[in-house]
Amino acid sequence: MQIAILIFDGLTALDAIGPYEVLSRLPGADLGFVAKEAGTKRTDTGALGVEADLALADMDSPEVVLVPGGPGSRPLMRDPEVLEWLRSAHASSTWTTSVCTGALVLGAAGILDGKRATTHWAFLDRLSELGAEPVAERVVEDGKVITAAGVSAGIDMALTLVARIAGDEVAQAIQLGIEYDPQPPFDAGSLSKASPEVIEMVRGAERAESE
Amino acid sequence: MQIAILIFDGLTALDAIGPYEVLSRLPGADLGFVAKEAGTKRTDTGALGVEADLALADMDSPEVVLVPGGPGSRPLMRDPEVLEWLRSAHASSTWTTSVCTGALVLGAAGILDGKRATTHWAFLDRLSELGAEPVAERVVEDGKVITAAGVSAGIDMALTLVARIAGDEVAQAIQLGIEYDPQPPFDAGSLSKASPEVIEMVRGAERAESE
Repeated sequence: MQIAILIFDGLTALDAIGPYEVLSRLPGADLGFVAKEAGTKRTDTGALGVEADLALADMDSPEVVLVPGGPGSRPLMRDPEVLEWLRSAHASSTWTTSVCTGALVLGAAGILDGKRATTHWAFLDRLSELGAEPVAERVVEDGKVITAAGVSAGIDMALTLVARIAGDEVAQAIQLGIEYDPQPPFDAGSLSKASPEVIEMVRGAERAESE
Repeated sequence: MQIAILIFDGLTALDAIGPYEVLSRLPGADLGFVAKEAGTKRTDTGALGVEADLALADMDSPEVVLVPGGPGSRPLMRDPEVLEWLRSAHASSTWTTSVCTGALVLGAAGILDGKRATTHWAFLDRLSELGAEPVAERVVEDGKVITAAGVSAGIDMALTLVARIAGDEVAQAIQLGIEYDPQPPFDAGSLSKASPEVIEMVRGAERAESE
């Protein structure tokens, strides 16, 4: 099963690597990292380089498409070559998926038109501008489109996807293999759980970044 | 604050990238991916290349050392150059950490001698051969050494570490930023929770791999 993970400069690494760690363990997976141009992509922090082994044309009809997010996903929303590849891949895919602000790229390609979808909590209202119905859930399925909330949600999304493709036991075996029995030291991972002070710290950092 | 993540061919990507995503968001972090030789390292599945920007000598006294695991960590346990770098880095570090079978490399360097430590559940009994006291917990702290269980446990470990370094609110802000509010579709992420059939699937795959 061909699985294409689209990467680009300025991606958030865990958006892509969380699902990669799950999907690459699917029996028969032929997973490739694809970019507009093959080569090393630097993540949003600048501290990590990840290889795109393939250019878009090298994997033009994957069965699973995954678009991660990060600040570097914004230029993709206006990139005709990337959007056309996405539309074409989506036309023949079995599953089209995103993590975090990767959903905005799917939206810009017209793939979320009229669909229920999610993204990182700080960008949820952007989805309606792109024709989607925003849903504040961690993993949202609508037909063959599955979107995940911010960054770490891609792991939950990928396990859900493996269950659809190969059944619950395979998904559970992968979960056990990566010992995904999460025990965060705090319960502050969503807007409804974090304190107002913590929410303001994150929003303040975002404002500083976008100025 | 200098943070060195040691990488190598055959690493399990999420072991390194989960903590990277958390630690790189620590204010003042100067995080580098370090290897015996700088350059591209392929992960255990072969499907991903990750860049080591630095050679060992380029970051010889990091304040935080992190060793991920994966099949490629086994040769490191017999590599005098890597073990010497680890011992030297540990001598001056503020925190020395591992994820998954990275703990076995710390053990081979003598760093876990007499310490409580953890690793991936399938390798827990190997820790006592290396002088450590195995503890079946997700994150184990003993002095300045923090070890995490398998693969995904590195995210929980890194949040714990950020709290020690910069306080609970900074850790919670990073948790909210990466929307780490885990909701796995199954509860099968540990030996005590997975079904016997699922455990056998994972053990069978491991036996096949080591043959």
